[in-house]
Amino acid sequence: MSKISPEILLTFIQLDRSRKTPLYIQLYEEIKKGVFEGMLRHGDRMPSTRSLAAEFSISRNCVLLAFEQLRLEGFLTSAVGAGTYVSEQLNELKPPGKKKMPAVPLVRVKKTAVNCNDFPLHTKFVLDYIGQEATLPFQPSIPSFADFPFQVWARLAASVYKDIHRLHLGYDSAQGYLPLREALTDYLRMNRSIHCSADQIIIVNGSSQALHLAAELLLKKDELCWMEDPGYLRAKSAIARFGAKICPVPVGKSGMDLDYAMRRFPAAKLAYVTPSHQYPLGETMPLIERIKLLKWASDHQMWVIEDDYESEFRYVKRPIPALKGLDTFGRVIYVGTFNKTLFPALRIGYMVLPSAEMATEFTIAKAVIDRQSPVIDQAILTKFILEGHFSRHLRRMRLIYKKAQEDLVVLLQKHLAAEVRISVADAGMHLIIWLLKKYDPLEILRKTRERGVMLYAIDELSVAFRHEGAFFLGFTGFKQEMMEKAVLILKEVLSEEKPIE
Amino acid sequence: MSKISPEILLTFIQLDRSRKTPLYIQLYEEIKKGVFEGMLRHGDRMPSTRSLAAEFSISRNCVLLAFEQLRLEGFLTSAVGAGTYVSEQLNELKPPGKKKMPAVPLVRVKKTAVNCNDFPLHTKFVLDYIGQEATLPFQPSIPSFADFPFQVWARLAASVYKDIHRLHLGYDSAQGYLPLREALTDYLRMNRSIHCSADQIIIVNGSSQALHLAAELLLKKDELCWMEDPGYLRAKSAIARFGAKICPVPVGKSGMDLDYAMRRFPAAKLAYVTPSHQYPLGETMPLIERIKLLKWASDHQMWVIEDDYESEFRYVKRPIPALKGLDTFGRVIYVGTFNKTLFPALRIGYMVLPSAEMATEFTIAKAVIDRQSPVIDQAILTKFILEGHFSRHLRRMRLIYKKAQEDLVVLLQKHLAAEVRISVADAGMHLIIWLLKKYDPLEILRKTRERGVMLYAIDELSVAFRHEGAFFLGFTGFKQEMMEKAVLILKEVLSEEKPIE
Repeated sequence: MSKISPEILLTFIQLDRSRKTPLYIQLYEEIKKGVFEGMLRHGDRMPSTRSLAAEFSISRNCVLLAFEQLRLEGFLTSAVGAGTYVSEQLNELKPPGKKKMPAVPLVRVKKTAVNCNDFPLHTKFVLDYIGQEATLPFQPSIPSFADFPFQVWARLAASVYKDIHRLHLGYDSAQGYLPLREALTDYLRMNRSIHCSADQIIIVNGSSQALHLAAELLLKKDELCWMEDPGYLRAKSAIARFGAKICPVPVGKSGMDLDYAMRRFPAAKLAYVTPSHQYPLGETMPLIERIKLLKWASDHQMWVIEDDYESEFRYVKRPIPALKGLDTFGRVIYVGTFNKTLFPALRIGYMVLPSAEMATEFTIAKAVIDRQSPVIDQAILTKFILEGHFSRHLRRMRLIYKKAQEDLVVLLQKHLAAEVRISVADAGMHLIIWLLKKYDPLEILRKTRERGVMLYAIDELSVAFRHEGAFFLGFTGFKQEMMEKAVLILKEVLSEEKPIE
Repeated sequence: MSKISPEILLTFIQLDRSRKTPLYIQLYEEIKKGVFEGMLRHGDRMPSTRSLAAEFSISRNCVLLAFEQLRLEGFLTSAVGAGTYVSEQLNELKPPGKKKMPAVPLVRVKKTAVNCNDFPLHTKFVLDYIGQEATLPFQPSIPSFADFPFQVWARLAASVYKDIHRLHLGYDSAQGYLPLREALTDYLRMNRSIHCSADQIIIVNGSSQALHLAAELLLKKDELCWMEDPGYLRAKSAIARFGAKICPVPVGKSGMDLDYAMRRFPAAKLAYVTPSHQYPLGETMPLIERIKLLKWASDHQMWVIEDDYESEFRYVKRPIPALKGLDTFGRVIYVGTFNKTLFPALRIGYMVLPSAEMATEFTIAKAVIDRQSPVIDQAILTKFILEGHFSRHLRRMRLIYKKAQEDLVVLLQKHLAAEVRISVADAGMHLIIWLLKKYDPLEILRKTRERGVMLYAIDELSVAFRHEGAFFLGFTGFKQEMMEKAVLILKEVLSEEKPIE
């Protein structure tokens, strides 16, 4: 990793023309000091004598003399035509010259960003999450990379790069790449029954950012927000971040229990819902409930965030139009993402606001926070949609994921029929299991994770309404053999654990 | 834009098997209704009869019958081998069937994100800024795209795409792509005299995000933060966003006036500085002042954010090591960005934290807010650095920008010698002019901007310390002819305006 030519500056070198010591000796001393102090490391390529001479406004001869001395003493080595390097042996001869890191005082960092510290499972969840680089079963929402059309994507990328001078690579509109927003209006109209114009859409880095913008702009401190409980942890932390209050609402067969919410928290200013496929329990909110929610929102000046999470992967029944598509009152903020349908490292999501004016307010906030989203990937994605690849990909993945869900059900029935009840949703990238006996959930989580199986408890996503013994298992990113191995590990862990009572 | 095949779902279509009406007639009616209500638009391609039959679990014959009737009535047209489309003439025959956008209630959006509303110039500045898609002189910090090695970048992109299966495209570490962080440690060591390890670095979307993270994690409500005044507007809004207090500190020949700050605001918990090139006035903080600041920070448990803004473009004198490089106390958070050295649409910046533990806290916050930065561009950038292109590019741009600065000075002297005093900095992408007569600055800004010249007043960046008649002019993104035209427009505007007094 240390093969960068320091072609710009060796900033640690200071030559002092007022000293009597000749400049070439000063240079020799400074380089030697640099090696001892770790500013130069063995294997580093030295700048050319010509560029160093220019850098320090000294003669090239000066540099040559200093280098010669350093070579003699074994600090530098040269090979004809290959440049001059800090000697590789140096490290063996000398104790590591790396300067000690300064002692850092006790960090007084305010942890406002993680607001759910009250629930030990939450923090654990977030911590597990951030460092994760490998993909392990049963992580949820992991696309099947083996089935992603990378060749198509790379071809479209090449065509974008070919015309890159046509892209605006300066500070572009903070609202997002206009052709992408235009392509989205068509996609949303055809697939989610949502009528909107490009100026109502804002491109964000993912649904997280959308939720944080909404939480910041729509709620004041201490205002109330209905949240599905159990529900999406990122939404909860977004809401809590600016001091608004989470109102946990239980989830039933129709998704969020609206009657409970209306009775218990009538003053709420915002509702966060996942109507097409409740996260994590998987229920779909029926049409009649959707209309009830919209009516209430209109009557009570309440905003509704519709997180249309994984709705693209619906396996049975025809979908109900998005809440946003039914919203004649202008109260719904729709949130969608490509990070789950394509790949998470893409980081492109979007929001549909009720009006262009409101989209402008959100755009200003986005501009203030991180200026805009990167443009090149947005341009590639636009081509991917317009050329029909996105629709094709979704259609294909729906079949693959439906099969994967069936496979996991079969595996669970085969190995764990006596231990679990399975609850399969009509859509999405995970299913739920309920342990038939009662165990310590933290122990189950710890032991399975130790053995490389990432199980998540529903209660990791709960504030008030617990679902003891319920776990959710992603099935989309793993080969059948991996899933079988993981199911067997879970079986093993359950056989080792003693049920409570 | 409406050529996407609706290959997934026509969600607006609902067939009701309990009705006596035959399914093909229901389908015919639903499609017709879709056209009238704007869910289908003229020119839209219809899904194949086969896929619709599958979608609705009806016979293909049903679909064929419905299509035939719609064709007879002129709603659909077909061409052999080219599919079936919603009739193009339809739009002329019928009044636009587009559903009216719902009337949106008055938006009650809290404008917390823009915190500098007290200063009318600020809001104007932000609003100008967010919609901007064209590049106009004298916008600051606009790289010269004509000189960017796009071919090299595209070649590296192609090689990343070729091996894309090796990248982790799932949820990657929220701290950023490890090889990029490793490359940065070498770059920082060689070029900025900063010793750090990859686990102290976190990759962010740009310096804005870095500043927002720092403001959120390092300051509590009502705590004080020293800010250069005039200074970077995004830093001010970041600090104010979570309720901390901005302490405006004047700027002199040595950058921030530390004596003033220490006397006036001794309780400050954070200082935001741009020591290598004060933004916007351009002064460099001398070594002795840097050490004074570090000592104070250590004695008073104060954090220091070093925004090393545009330090890469230094035209005269050798640079002083970064404040972070001198920091033996572990109080400095270093912020750098590639958005100005490469291109703004890239959206990659980074922070160097005093310790790995502190970097973990920042990583958690980043993970909560937007999960992680996109990975592919990070991989391309890593190659760009490791193969030496970054250093080469900087060296080349330094010469080009130095020349551009000289050109602008010549133009100003040629056309506006009687009107302005020029103040040139040793580094950066803009220079300052001072009008010799007093004008209404808002009028000058309005009139020049109307004519396509983006001038910015220093006072747009001030909270308390005004610099009347001072404007800053970016010179890096524009051809000489463009700059001359813009200088002449400025001359014209000044000749039209009456000086005050």
